[in-house]
Amino acid sequence: MFALAEAIFPICRSITGEGVRETLRILGRHLPLKRREVPTGTRVLDWEIPKEWVIREAFIEDMNGNRILDFRECNLTVLNYSIPVDRIVHLEELREHVHTLPDQPDAIPYRTSYYAPRWGFCMPHRQLEALASGMYRVRIDSELKDGSLAYGEYVHQGETDREFLLTTHICHPSMANDNCSGLALLTLLARDLSHRRTRYTYRFLFAPGTIGALAWLAANEDRVKLIDHGLVISCVGDSGGPSYKRSRRHDAFIDRAMAHVLRNASGSRLLDFSPYGYDERQFCSPGFNLPVGLFQRSTFATFPEYHTSADNLDFIRPEYLADSYRLLMDAIDIVEKDWTPLNLFPKGEPQLGRRGLYGALGGDKSASEKAMAMLWVLNLADGENSLLAIAERSGLNFDDVAGAAELLREHGLLAASVAE
Amino acid sequence: MFALAEAIFPICRSITGEGVRETLRILGRHLPLKRREVPTGTRVLDWEIPKEWVIREAFIEDMNGNRILDFRECNLTVLNYSIPVDRIVHLEELREHVHTLPDQPDAIPYRTSYYAPRWGFCMPHRQLEALASGMYRVRIDSELKDGSLAYGEYVHQGETDREFLLTTHICHPSMANDNCSGLALLTLLARDLSHRRTRYTYRFLFAPGTIGALAWLAANEDRVKLIDHGLVISCVGDSGGPSYKRSRRHDAFIDRAMAHVLRNASGSRLLDFSPYGYDERQFCSPGFNLPVGLFQRSTFATFPEYHTSADNLDFIRPEYLADSYRLLMDAIDIVEKDWTPLNLFPKGEPQLGRRGLYGALGGDKSASEKAMAMLWVLNLADGENSLLAIAERSGLNFDDVAGAAELLREHGLLAASVAE
Amino acid sequence: MFALAEAIFPICRSITGEGVRETLRILGRHLPLKRREVPTGTRVLDWEIPKEWVIREAFIEDMNGNRILDFRECNLTVLNYSIPVDRIVHLEELREHVHTLPDQPDAIPYRTSYYAPRWGFCMPHRQLEALASGMYRVRIDSELKDGSLAYGEYVHQGETDREFLLTTHICHPSMANDNCSGLALLTLLARDLSHRRTRYTYRFLFAPGTIGALAWLAANEDRVKLIDHGLVISCVGDSGGPSYKRSRRHDAFIDRAMAHVLRNASGSRLLDFSPYGYDERQFCSPGFNLPVGLFQRSTFATFPEYHTSADNLDFIRPEYLADSYRLLMDAIDIVEKDWTPLNLFPKGEPQLGRRGLYGALGGDKSASEKAMAMLWVLNLADGENSLLAIAERSGLNFDDVAGAAELLREHGLLAASVAE
Repeated sequence: MFALAEAIFPICRSITGEGVRETLRILGRHLPLKRREVPTGTRVLDWEIPKEWVIREAFIEDMNGNRILDFRECNLTVLNYSIPVDRIVHLEELREHVHTLPDQPDAIPYRTSYYAPRWGFCMPHRQLEALASGMYRVRIDSELKDGSLAYGEYVHQGETDREFLLTTHICHPSMANDNCSGLALLTLLARDLSHRRTRYTYRFLFAPGTIGALAWLAANEDRVKLIDHGLVISCVGDSGGPSYKRSRRHDAFIDRAMAHVLRNASGSRLLDFSPYGYDERQFCSPGFNLPVGLFQRSTFATFPEYHTSADNLDFIRPEYLADSYRLLMDAIDIVEKDWTPLNLFPKGEPQLGRRGLYGALGGDKSASEKAMAMLWVLNLADGENSLLAIAERSGLNFDDVAGAAELLREHGLLAASVAE
Repeated sequence: MFALAEAIFPICRSITGEGVRETLRILGRHLPLKRREVPTGTRVLDWEIPKEWVIREAFIEDMNGNRILDFRECNLTVLNYSIPVDRIVHLEELREHVHTLPDQPDAIPYRTSYYAPRWGFCMPHRQLEALASGMYRVRIDSELKDGSLAYGEYVHQGETDREFLLTTHICHPSMANDNCSGLALLTLLARDLSHRRTRYTYRFLFAPGTIGALAWLAANEDRVKLIDHGLVISCVGDSGGPSYKRSRRHDAFIDRAMAHVLRNASGSRLLDFSPYGYDERQFCSPGFNLPVGLFQRSTFATFPEYHTSADNLDFIRPEYLADSYRLLMDAIDIVEKDWTPLNLFPKGEPQLGRRGLYGALGGDKSASEKAMAMLWVLNLADGENSLLAIAERSGLNFDDVAGAAELLREHGLLAASVAE
Repeated sequence: MFALAEAIFPICRSITGEGVRETLRILGRHLPLKRREVPTGTRVLDWEIPKEWVIREAFIEDMNGNRILDFRECNLTVLNYSIPVDRIVHLEELREHVHTLPDQPDAIPYRTSYYAPRWGFCMPHRQLEALASGMYRVRIDSELKDGSLAYGEYVHQGETDREFLLTTHICHPSMANDNCSGLALLTLLARDLSHRRTRYTYRFLFAPGTIGALAWLAANEDRVKLIDHGLVISCVGDSGGPSYKRSRRHDAFIDRAMAHVLRNASGSRLLDFSPYGYDERQFCSPGFNLPVGLFQRSTFATFPEYHTSADNLDFIRPEYLADSYRLLMDAIDIVEKDWTPLNLFPKGEPQLGRRGLYGALGGDKSASEKAMAMLWVLNLADGENSLLAIAERSGLNFDDVAGAAELLREHGLLAASVAE
């Protein structure tokens, strides 16, 4: 997973352009990703697909031809979506086009101007402060042309058409956590899931933030009713405790499943929905109101490396990527394995001992965890509680509850509720 | 406001009598207050208007004619509603008719006996203890006569007949916080509101506690269904943190509005309803169950000055009166400005940038408060949430939410929900 | 109560056999207990009544005839329901049949094997460790024969057929808290209640754990719909704070009544339902889902004396038995005395003073508790709130609320709600 993140790190992505296509090509080595292209000018809901951005070169030179800043060394140095410029300007004018972070003087900020035509550079504040007064040559060899927005999609067909949507954004240039981590994790999770027989159909979306999600929604307005569960994934490689932001519905099944998964995860946080963040903003807009939450480690805009050159490959670690992967798989397991049991011997407890399900020696001070799980399942198997609800009320792990339910079903004590 | 409280402080009020009328005359200089008179003997719900109390003189003298206590110096010294007496009594008998506060030996308590015919005096405990044994002359020149109970009413007509009731009690003699403060505040708030065009009709009631509220309710039994919001106001001039006691309904709109207003007020307290207190007892009786709460600073019976001569003009301060005024106006603003928005572009976020509503430069670490308010309003504008509900869920101030909603409406992104 | 517990302590009880009958005979001296017998082989729900256990003798001797362990000295020493054995075995083999508590080396554990045919002994761990290697004679003179399971039942007929079920288990041998305490308490509580005219019919059940409750349920499947309230009682004589485990319904009336009773009890704990414990497991199985909770002092399996020889007569005390008795009687009082009042003067407060119900002297800083109870009852007497609900919302004691309601009813201010 880390190697894949590493492979796509150097690419200069934006919401359109070759960077996205190149990234999709690399991800596509691991799974049969379909690339969709939406032409410039296409209306997508209240928005319009912008012109495609081409960036070839960008630098600042002093009048001796010394290169002060070069896009080829770090693609954050050019204002993303910058219009072309090739001029000699005085430092005073240059300053108006240079973005820095005075509080983090050694870091280059990440800045964009997708919808307002501007040119600009980003550099360390310390470097800007050190610039001698005088004239500088600024050159950005970019182009805004009629083209298209690209996004990638992969669908793993399940037994039913009900969908689990997993999506991550593909529009950020060289930032490791935000979001090479999400792209790598989701690619390999999709690959692994493609080998598995699943109840739900899984849709994986690798789309530019906001405009990409809107483009997908516009093209799939009639399909969204199939979505039962959804997760937006980003920033999943840093050392922060895992966090989950609930969907707008607050108590959708995915919200409860993620809460259960994070319950015992060290340093985890559960956040209420807010309409600021990643593409859950679009999926949870009131006209869609989909059960889509956001999974991250450190939450966006809360770590100093966020949207700066410090979000580099040193900032993410294979073990955190692996932990994020495991937590997501745990949630998928809950979604896949949940069912609503009905106790076929609901009056009194059925005799577990006779069926070999219970320690035969009475009087022990504590029932085993396994026996507790069986007792909880039998007690709550009235057709009103799914396994997740039983795990929630009992405080037991979903896995233990699911295992007990399976055992009880094998012994003829449970059936699936007809309501299912 | 303080000056008005000062002006009415010296008057000896009771639940009936000239004190109330004199107070209404002074308040009436600021707004066209209507005085209502309800004759002695009138049935008001389960009660009856009592005889009117006239108090002319009250004193205790020793046998040398030295005045020990004189009503003219402090009108708390006579038991309110005392029957007349003019006798020579031994200290032992006198003691049975004198009320003191052993725990606050320098304060004169406030005591009443409206419905049981008694005579009595109130004095500092220290003074009573110092009285020499022997005979004393006690004289109370009072009268209980057929007359009437007076209360004041002012109605500010709004665009609709739906009402906001604001009421305060007018029956206490010289106590500054309880309740010259409430009388002064409500008078000037009514005056200021009278210049404003409002959606709701505002009814201001200046009535004797309990019996005055009952008299109003008895005369307006058919009108109460018009009352959408109501507040009882008293003790609003002391330094205590502002407090709000919820209505019996617990979550009426006024309860939520006051909770929102007090949310950030320093030292504020939110109390559950209880059937003991001021006239919210009557308005919240089960047969009416009106959405009427109680606004105070220090809550009654919790401060040592309560119902004593220490509740004087030193105990209230202009700045606390002003703060109380401001908080009430904030609640009125919420009631006036609340509406239920409907997002006209509910699928995905509408493009705020194109409409000049959003900073064009992306990548900033935090959205501004203003942008957050717009995003929250758009997200929750599904016709189920009024602005107050949006403020509650978002944690934003009502003003910011209302401002954002107005801006979005001006830009054609929101309409008022048809359900409204 | 303690004396009765003492009288039944020495008896060797099990889920069947003469021990139960002997215990019922002693309890039956205090109330006309009916003994029921359910024959071996009878199907009771998913279970079957086992063969009846007869135990005559059990010991271990060394080869010199020295008795190492003798059932006559402590009836915990034989594995309860042990099959007969009479052999010479080596210590190594003996060890496999001896149960000890390594963490409590001086205590004899209590162990059973009702449904798996085994033989075995229980002894202090220290004693087992001290046994010399070599051969031992083991003899258990027991028998498993066709017979019957016995349980006791006593019904106190109330004014209605709606039932309050109180049950405790009778199957444990010599353990004082678990459950001579419950048997003694419930017997004397039944005796005392038998002299009282009650609204509810009270059913007292003294039955072997699990199989006895199942036998009763199987025989009374059609009656259980009459049960409005129920309590399982056990371990009620130790010094632990009183505890209540809610029924599966969580907020049944009995759950609220017990919560109210324990509210002010020192060291009390309120636990959520779980399907492990005593016979509430059976009564709260999903096919019955009866409003039956569990009352204990220390909760089972949490005190070191639990299910060991240390649970002896020193472990329980008359004062704790008395306290448990009082708490249960308080709950019964709530169940008996609860009713839903309707305020006949719901508009405004009725004038309590005129009716002599209110201190006539106004201005006091605090209303008395009694007056507060009257005000709360009047305010909430809208036909939606029973007295317990009024006590819950007001924070007052049920007794004070009930007293106030009775006084108000006597004065014609309240009537019972027609809905009742």
